[in-house]
Amino acid sequence: MDKNRAWSMPPRTAAAIAREELPLTRVVQKFGGTSVADPDRLRHVAGRVARQVAAGERVAVVVSAMAGHTNQLVRWVEDVGGPTADLAEHDVVVAAGEQITAGLLALALQRLGVPARSYLGWQLPLNTDDAHGKARITEVDAAGVRAALDRGEVAVLPGFQGVDPTGRLTTLGRGGSDTSAVAVAAALDAERCDIFTDVDGIYTTDPRIVSRAKKLERITYEEMLELASLGAKVLQTRSVALAMQYDVPVQVLSSFEDKPGTLVIADDPTMEHQTVSGITYSRDEAKVTLVGVEDRPGVAARIFGALAEANVNVDMIVQSVSPDGRSTDLTFTLAASDLARARDVLDPVVRALGCRDLVADGGVVKISVIGVGMRSHAGIAHRMFNVLAERGINIQAISTSEIKISVLIPAEYTELAIRTLHAAYGLDADG
Amino acid sequence: MDKNRAWSMPPRTAAAIAREELPLTRVVQKFGGTSVADPDRLRHVAGRVARQVAAGERVAVVVSAMAGHTNQLVRWVEDVGGPTADLAEHDVVVAAGEQITAGLLALALQRLGVPARSYLGWQLPLNTDDAHGKARITEVDAAGVRAALDRGEVAVLPGFQGVDPTGRLTTLGRGGSDTSAVAVAAALDAERCDIFTDVDGIYTTDPRIVSRAKKLERITYEEMLELASLGAKVLQTRSVALAMQYDVPVQVLSSFEDKPGTLVIADDPTMEHQTVSGITYSRDEAKVTLVGVEDRPGVAARIFGALAEANVNVDMIVQSVSPDGRSTDLTFTLAASDLARARDVLDPVVRALGCRDLVADGGVVKISVIGVGMRSHAGIAHRMFNVLAERGINIQAISTSEIKISVLIPAEYTELAIRTLHAAYGLDADG
Repeated sequence: MDKNRAWSMPPRTAAAIAREELPLTRVVQKFGGTSVADPDRLRHVAGRVARQVAAGERVAVVVSAMAGHTNQLVRWVEDVGGPTADLAEHDVVVAAGEQITAGLLALALQRLGVPARSYLGWQLPLNTDDAHGKARITEVDAAGVRAALDRGEVAVLPGFQGVDPTGRLTTLGRGGSDTSAVAVAAALDAERCDIFTDVDGIYTTDPRIVSRAKKLERITYEEMLELASLGAKVLQTRSVALAMQYDVPVQVLSSFEDKPGTLVIADDPTMEHQTVSGITYSRDEAKVTLVGVEDRPGVAARIFGALAEANVNVDMIVQSVSPDGRSTDLTFTLAASDLARARDVLDPVVRALGCRDLVADGGVVKISVIGVGMRSHAGIAHRMFNVLAERGINIQAISTSEIKISVLIPAEYTELAIRTLHAAYGLDADG
Repeated sequence: MDKNRAWSMPPRTAAAIAREELPLTRVVQKFGGTSVADPDRLRHVAGRVARQVAAGERVAVVVSAMAGHTNQLVRWVEDVGGPTADLAEHDVVVAAGEQITAGLLALALQRLGVPARSYLGWQLPLNTDDAHGKARITEVDAAGVRAALDRGEVAVLPGFQGVDPTGRLTTLGRGGSDTSAVAVAAALDAERCDIFTDVDGIYTTDPRIVSRAKKLERITYEEMLELASLGAKVLQTRSVALAMQYDVPVQVLSSFEDKPGTLVIADDPTMEHQTVSGITYSRDEAKVTLVGVEDRPGVAARIFGALAEANVNVDMIVQSVSPDGRSTDLTFTLAASDLARARDVLDPVVRALGCRDLVADGGVVKISVIGVGMRSHAGIAHRMFNVLAERGINIQAISTSEIKISVLIPAEYTELAIRTLHAAYGLDADG
C-alpha cells in the first residue's frame, strides 16, 4: 500500500462538509519544528489533520519551520550580517523557514485527498508592529481563511511571521508560532487551539523528579501563566496571555501519541478546584545580599533603580530588621544569568553607599506552589512552611501572588522539597 | 583586518550620490546560484556590487537561490506532493530559496557600509500570470526600487519569483532569474543588465572543441537567440527575447574574474559586422525517416499533426523526390529526448498510412553557422557546403533562417566540422 495513501478523506465526508451538514466546529492546530522535521513527519501531521477533518472539524493548521532550520538561517544571518544585523532583513531570511513547511504541509494534505492551501503571513494579512525580530501582532484578518474552512478546505499558515504597516515581513520572536496559532484561533472564533508538542500535557510537577506526577485534565490561564513564567517550557507566556485575553481554549497535547492533552481554559467559578494545581521550580536563580546598608529612605530606590536601568529584573526582596536602627542587610533574587551584569552595576553603588559587603549565592532554587483554589482556601502557605520546616529545609525568602506562593531554598533540597509538597497537597497519583 | 570590512563605500561617494552629483546610471546585476552559494561568496558579490556603487552606478541586484538549494526544495515538494504536486504550493516552497539569498545579500551590503534592502517579488510587485511553476511576467512596478536607487541605496531582488493576479506566489521556471533581471532592467530603464555567470562571455564556438575560439565583445539579440535556442547554456532564450523587446543591453560576464564580458545588444546598421559570429552545435538531435510514405496531399499534415498534438517539436524536414510519383521517404529531426514519445505517437499513424518502415537514428548532430552579417553577405551557405564536402562530411538535412544555416551530419564528424568551419569563416584567434 502506498504510504502516501494510507489515509484519505472519505468522499462522503467532504461532500457533507461542503453541504454544511456537519457541525461548524473550527479548530486551529499548531505543530512545532520537531513535528514537521522531515517529509515523513509532515505526512504524519497531514494524516492527523485529515482524521480531524474526517471527524467533521474545520481545521486551520499553523506550522513552525523544520527543526533546526531556523537556527541554520539565523547562523547565516549572523555570519553575513554580523552581531548587529538589520532585523528587517533577518526577518526576510528567517521567515522563509515557516513558508517552506506551510507549502509542504498543504501538499501532503492534498495528497491525502484533503483540499488544502497555504496562506502566508502577508497574505492573510497577519498585521504586526514594526519591531522586527520580536514583532507584536496588531490585527489578524482571517476572512480568507474562514471562507476556506467554510468551503471544507484546510488552511495551512506559517507561524512566527507577519507583515508590518509598510508591508515588510516581520517575525514574532522565539515561541512566536504558539502566539500566531492563538491569534488566528481568536480571529476565527475557533472552538479550540491545539498546540502539539513533544510532551503530552501539563503535569502537576516535573515527572523526572516526582514519578507520581499526574497529567492535568485542565488548568486555568492564570495558573498556566505562572507555570510558564516559572520555567515550564511547554507554552510561551505570550501565547497564554493572548489566549486568556480572547478566551481561546488551548489544548497542549503530544504530536506523537493519539490521546487528549491538557486543556488551558478560563477559570469557571462553578468548577470544583483542586486547591493546588502544581508544584514548579526554577533553578535559574541567584541570591544577592548587601550587608550593612544604611537604613534610610532612598537607598533601596538607588539600588533597584540601577538594576532596572541595566534591565536586570529583581524577583524576591527581603530586608532584615535593622538591629541598631541605622544599618540593615538587603537580600534579593535575580536570574542567575543576570548575576555578572548585576555585580558590574552594583559595585559602584555599593561603594558610594558605604555598604560593608556584597555576597552573591548561586546555590539556591525557587519552589512555587500554584493554584487558583488558593483564592478560596486558607492555610496553603501555612502548610507549605510547616512541611518544609519538618524536613529541616530553611526558607531564605518568600514571595506570593493571588494564586502562587514561592520560596527560595538551598538548591540541594530541590527534589526533597518538591516531593514533600507534591504529597502534602494530595497531588500524588494513585498506585 | 576584518574580512567583512575589506571594502567599504567612501563616505564622500555616498554623499555625492545623495546630492545627485554623480551621473544617474542605473544598472541591474544578476548573480546566479554558484555566485551566492555560501556566506563567503555572498560577501564576494557584495564587494563587487559595492565597487560598482562607489564608481557612481546605482545598482539593483537580482539573486538566485544558493546553488543546490532549489533542487533540495524541489525534492521535498516531489517527496511530499508526489509527481503531480500542486504547482501553486510548489511555488510557495521553492520561492523561499531566493528570498533567503536576497535578505542575506542585503545584510552583506549593509555590513560594507552600503545602504541596501530587499524587495520581494510580491513587494515590488512583479506581477505574473497564474501559470504556476512557469509563470510569465505581465508587469513590473519598479517605482519603489527606482526611488531607493535614487536615494543612493542598493535594491536586492530575489529572481525567479512573482505574484499572480490573486496575490499568490509564482515562480518563472528554470532560468527565470535571468528573465527577472531583464524585466526589472526594462522597468527601471536601466543602462545595462549584467548577468554574472561561471563563464566570462560568449565565444565564437565551444572552446573545449576549438582552442582558438574567441570571446565576442558584442553580439546581437537575434544572434544570441539563435545561440541560446541551439544549446548555448549561458542565457535563457526567454530573457534574451525580453531584452530584445525592451532594448535592454545585456552583458554576460564572469562573477569570479574582474573583466568585461560580452555585450548583447540591438543590431546597429552602422556597426561593422563579422559575416559570421559563431559556430554552434546541438547533440540532442534524432533523425526519423518514414520509408515509403504515400505521396499525396494530407499525409504530411497527418504525421506532423500527430507529433504537434503530443508536444513534439519537429525541426528540419526533408522529403526526397518521389521516384515513381506514388511513394516517397520523409525525413525529419526532433530532440533526442522526444524520440521515445514520437515513436509511440507515430506507430499507429505509420500503420494507418501503410508506410513501409520507420527508421530512427540518434547518431546525428546539428551544426549551425550564425551571424547577422549573412543578411548582407552572399555565399555563406555555399562556403559551408563546400568546406564540409572537402572534408568528406555528408550533409543529411539543411535548415536556414535569415541569420543562421544549420546542417545535420553524422555525430562522429562534430569536432572536425566545427574546427573546419571556425577556420573557414576567419574566426580563429591569432596566435
